[in-house]
Amino acid sequence: MAVIEFLASGTVTSAQGFLAGATVCGIKASGGVDLAILHSEKPCTVAGVFTTNAIKAAPVVVSQRRVRSGRAQSIIVNSGCANACTGEDGVADAEEMAELAAKKLGLSAYDVLVASTGVIGVRLPLERIRSGVKGIVLKGNGGHELAKAIMTTDTFPKEVALRVETDFGAFIVGGVAKGAGMIHPQLATMLCFLTTDADVEAGVLQDCLRQAVDVSFNMVTIDGDTSPNDMVVLLANRTSGVKIGEDSAGLLTRALEETCVYLAKCIAKDGEGATKLIEVVVEGALDVVEARAAARTVAASPLVKAAVHGNDPNWGRIVAALGRSGIRMEERRLDVYLCGTCVMKQGQPQSFDRRRLNMSLTEKEVSIKLHLNLGLAKAVAWGCDLSEEYVTINSAYTS
Amino acid sequence: MAVIEFLASGTVTSAQGFLAGATVCGIKASGGVDLAILHSEKPCTVAGVFTTNAIKAAPVVVSQRRVRSGRAQSIIVNSGCANACTGEDGVADAEEMAELAAKKLGLSAYDVLVASTGVIGVRLPLERIRSGVKGIVLKGNGGHELAKAIMTTDTFPKEVALRVETDFGAFIVGGVAKGAGMIHPQLATMLCFLTTDADVEAGVLQDCLRQAVDVSFNMVTIDGDTSPNDMVVLLANRTSGVKIGEDSAGLLTRALEETCVYLAKCIAKDGEGATKLIEVVVEGALDVVEARAAARTVAASPLVKAAVHGNDPNWGRIVAALGRSGIRMEERRLDVYLCGTCVMKQGQPQSFDRRRLNMSLTEKEVSIKLHLNLGLAKAVAWGCDLSEEYVTINSAYTS
Repeated sequence: MAVIEFLASGTVTSAQGFLAGATVCGIKASGGVDLAILHSEKPCTVAGVFTTNAIKAAPVVVSQRRVRSGRAQSIIVNSGCANACTGEDGVADAEEMAELAAKKLGLSAYDVLVASTGVIGVRLPLERIRSGVKGIVLKGNGGHELAKAIMTTDTFPKEVALRVETDFGAFIVGGVAKGAGMIHPQLATMLCFLTTDADVEAGVLQDCLRQAVDVSFNMVTIDGDTSPNDMVVLLANRTSGVKIGEDSAGLLTRALEETCVYLAKCIAKDGEGATKLIEVVVEGALDVVEARAAARTVAASPLVKAAVHGNDPNWGRIVAALGRSGIRMEERRLDVYLCGTCVMKQGQPQSFDRRRLNMSLTEKEVSIKLHLNLGLAKAVAWGCDLSEEYVTINSAYTS
Repeated sequence: MAVIEFLASGTVTSAQGFLAGATVCGIKASGGVDLAILHSEKPCTVAGVFTTNAIKAAPVVVSQRRVRSGRAQSIIVNSGCANACTGEDGVADAEEMAELAAKKLGLSAYDVLVASTGVIGVRLPLERIRSGVKGIVLKGNGGHELAKAIMTTDTFPKEVALRVETDFGAFIVGGVAKGAGMIHPQLATMLCFLTTDADVEAGVLQDCLRQAVDVSFNMVTIDGDTSPNDMVVLLANRTSGVKIGEDSAGLLTRALEETCVYLAKCIAKDGEGATKLIEVVVEGALDVVEARAAARTVAASPLVKAAVHGNDPNWGRIVAALGRSGIRMEERRLDVYLCGTCVMKQGQPQSFDRRRLNMSLTEKEVSIKLHLNLGLAKAVAWGCDLSEEYVTINSAYTS
């Protein structure tokens, strides 16, 4: 029997033996904290999933290479500049950034991962990072500071930790993420760092992470644009002494799923300009790949998102988006629920109390449920409404 | 030698032997013209391409069946109600709509096609259509009236005609379209009716139409949402006496391409809330399928569209969108031009006069050119900017 519970004020440093710190080094125009380090006192096994965009940012190229070794101990991360589309110079910059952290921490640069988020096509201001790194003070409760340092257009920091109590001991899983824009992950997401003090071999760690990411970050969409900087990295430093083997991997996967779903929903809620979280459940699909495609397509539809923004029960757009998702379906079997109200039953439009549904749509969380009535597969995706503010934010990002 | 020239004030009834008329029948809340008939004095051969959305509106189901016979003589069309997601009752409604027109015109209902556009999930107000049909007066210059009757959130009617002068006589191709929202056609587009007085066998007609649609309507995107009502239909009534066989089909295809590209660009320009036309050219791709996918993905990116709206030369978003398009590419070979200014050369960011590029972006037409430098394939896609107004229009469409 295992018990999983969320910790009050949990952060990425809630797991034992992890430290973090952040500083203002002047990359972000806002003048906020923009450079941070996450560090484990002991060497860790590491797992990671990275963007599938053909354009990979320099820090993705560098970190992906290092994660392949299965070990790491620290992550240095900046916001305000993505170090993407910067050619070979950009890769050299990312490597130097890792070296700066390694020197400070007395590590090999190969044990330091690098992450960046911000504007694409601009070189990193290395001079600022060089002096910034010196100012970072690592603390056992530094997770919250790091969460703030990786924000760009995010309006709140996204962090969580949970404690897993098992028959053979307790361990903690912590996580931090950033989101907001260019969010439509394909096998990874913008930036997410996860920690655990469990003792897990790198291969098992990678399997557990992959499964958790598939039902969480890979099911979030803000705007359909996949970033070249997406990365989810999980460090396990074995400080708790709890050993996770293949037999107990299911437990770690469950804990990671809870962590990642929590952070993924935070990202959706805090989409650029968003005022609401949209949850799309697709049931009765012929297979899970199709259920996932359908849920993601509906959650990504700009017309569905705009209707939800205006509290408009224009459910025809939900069905139209489902129809273009490319999955197998039959219109005459389809049931559609909007905020719990059945608006289509076996392909027939249902009459409903428009005013009441209007009211339900004003809630902060809007649920859309589609039952295909064909098979047993199910998937859930999360998105947000599309507001005028999304456009305002994105029409002058670099100007 | 053939000469193709645009006619001044050309409409869908510019081709000989075509008539049209429209009326206010009270489906559109605005009280504008909303029911129209396009009619040929002689029976026509017909070609059509229809939505690939798994959800097909009733008029698509009915018209698709009739186009298969290769002959038709009239089209009845309404705006304000899509007659989509209306089950079997909706199909019966669409069939009755065709019958009403057939009775008025003294035809078999099998020679009448049906089209609808507007809100999804609402039954057609047949009573209004019954009395409305009686009030339609068909005229040889009625094309412009029909163009207005099929508008929904469109801000201007979209119509064109051109004259093809050949060694063996002259013929005319006319066309009318509507666009504005839910525009991301897959093998068809919202609504487009084309006419010609050339004499063309149905099989040849279908081939010519398919080719023209592929480089025009299939390369337009407003919001990534594919409508269940998309339909492009071409009627050929042979009144000019000019016979188009397999040998001269290339000429008709060229004329149709010019017509369809013109209308497709009108649709992009008049996207909901749009202030600018965006043209995306992809060159140097390994094959044309990839060139097309790349051009469409960039034209559809909400982040690219929002940046263009704000005159922000944030070209990194163009490259990020290209990268997620799934095509084969190498970052180090990529050249990117924005409004004619080179912003990336062989994968390296280029310095440019930001203020001058800012100014260029304020033009009504913004050009994006991506050279992959891998192969010889090329494609062009058209889209529009994403404005706050798009959201405003779509957040209260049915409320």
